[in-house]
Amino acid sequence: MAPAHSGRPSADHPSATVTVLGLGPMGRALAGAFVDAGLRTTVWNRTPGRDRELLDRGAAGAASAAEAVAASEVTVVCVVNYDAADAVLRQEEVAAALKGRTVVNLTADTPARARDTAGWATAHGVRYLDGAIMTPTTTIGTPDAVFLYSGPDDLYHELAPVRQALGGTHTHLGEDAGRAAAYDIALLDIFWTAMSGYAHALAVARAEGVTATELAPFAQGIGAILPPLFAGTAADADAGTYSGEGNPLTSAVSSMSHIVHVSESHGIDAGVMRAAEGMARRTIGLGHGQDGFIRVAEVIGRR
Amino acid sequence: MAPAHSGRPSADHPSATVTVLGLGPMGRALAGAFVDAGLRTTVWNRTPGRDRELLDRGAAGAASAAEAVAASEVTVVCVVNYDAADAVLRQEEVAAALKGRTVVNLTADTPARARDTAGWATAHGVRYLDGAIMTPTTTIGTPDAVFLYSGPDDLYHELAPVRQALGGTHTHLGEDAGRAAAYDIALLDIFWTAMSGYAHALAVARAEGVTATELAPFAQGIGAILPPLFAGTAADADAGTYSGEGNPLTSAVSSMSHIVHVSESHGIDAGVMRAAEGMARRTIGLGHGQDGFIRVAEVIGRR
Repeated sequence: MAPAHSGRPSADHPSATVTVLGLGPMGRALAGAFVDAGLRTTVWNRTPGRDRELLDRGAAGAASAAEAVAASEVTVVCVVNYDAADAVLRQEEVAAALKGRTVVNLTADTPARARDTAGWATAHGVRYLDGAIMTPTTTIGTPDAVFLYSGPDDLYHELAPVRQALGGTHTHLGEDAGRAAAYDIALLDIFWTAMSGYAHALAVARAEGVTATELAPFAQGIGAILPPLFAGTAADADAGTYSGEGNPLTSAVSSMSHIVHVSESHGIDAGVMRAAEGMARRTIGLGHGQDGFIRVAEVIGRR
Repeated sequence: MAPAHSGRPSADHPSATVTVLGLGPMGRALAGAFVDAGLRTTVWNRTPGRDRELLDRGAAGAASAAEAVAASEVTVVCVVNYDAADAVLRQEEVAAALKGRTVVNLTADTPARARDTAGWATAHGVRYLDGAIMTPTTTIGTPDAVFLYSGPDDLYHELAPVRQALGGTHTHLGEDAGRAAAYDIALLDIFWTAMSGYAHALAVARAEGVTATELAPFAQGIGAILPPLFAGTAADADAGTYSGEGNPLTSAVSSMSHIVHVSESHGIDAGVMRAAEGMARRTIGLGHGQDGFIRVAEVIGRR
């Protein structure tokens, strides 16, 4: 099937219909993008009342999840986690209504949960694509949105009209249903760890009389160093070579212990940095002190 | 004094002489930049033999730290920490040789140590500027180098010829000698926490069959989100307003617990994320669940 070049229903896709289950901030953004793209959109949320603005914009409501999924060929699920997703999908009448139809599950959870739900879908004759949304609600429907998918390749391609209505870039990572969640977890690990570091740095800076606004331009500068470092160390990490030239682990732990010391001297919890320093010092203890920091990944991942 | 526009000795600065104490990777980079800029450069390192390449390039050696500091108007110190810096500077013959001269201490340590060494310098008639180097050795002498300073304003300006020989950007943060170290600690807190998150993410990804090279383009994408987020939340943090619209703390901890779960299900230590999640959950426990993540900074910094 040739990909549609517009989200508007085309002659190729006269019946581009989509149901959105879950109307939290992200579910509402997805449904709004579908409505804006001209897809016949049905919406449902466990707690009622969340659909008002979408109904005003032209979406159809539904009295139950089963009625909602029966209204469209494709159902997009975006709820808080797979406990919530399964609580909706794994009801007898919902499963019956989904038989022969497609579920795209954009709920975030673990790879194991994604694989489990894919298995349930197969057992119930439901076509299933798992996915992850890597960007904030404000990006949905814009070129900045980033979506990852895993599951059947043909289904991924068939869903082009639905995907394109969401804007942004869409990447299919493979047939293993858990793969999008694996990327999601790893990327959120980077994101939330970094944000924790930033929050902690603001607390330490404030204790030293430095405001967040004063720190901001330099924090941006440090942040800008990260993406090329991530890319530049990836090949090393895969190859098991970890050059510490100019910046060995022994130098990193010196900085880390200064951070712990200053933090705690101000009565600020340094648990995150203590744990990070511990990983680094254990890596040094295993004989890797002259290696680069990313050697830590190998040591903590050792089976 | 007008700033010199070239590192080369000018008619204004016929005697631009500089000594570098400490010839680790960063000390060698600094000394190399001074030599390249045409400053008369003297080098010394506690462990001998590290000066060979610099002597070949035209630097002068010295038999002792006291002899080294006596050779120049300005001494730049860059050693592993202030224990090492003080062990060199606070010797009777070194202090005597430094009297009336200038020390620029680019060693990284805590704000308190910087203030203590500034106090020692004042007591011994030594002019003292504290500083921090925010970029890797490879940036020294190039436009990418970033230097922070704190201490007397007039001394900072007077040192323009020496600073300019190092390339990059130089920022004076105030007269409190500890201020450069405070920024340094906060910025390194962001950096090393984020790098710990990246190393951990690589270990989790590998356990899920995802290589660092496969993850790299997406890791870069996540990394690129950080600098504008740092800048965008700074004003909120200073004002004590923490909008969680679209991304409340309750949603963050859901992701964080997934990361802990996947990590530990693979036998990978999740201590960093457990500590980060703990900060976030305590912040929610204090009634801030609908706030944005940076509310954490206020809670952990509370006195």
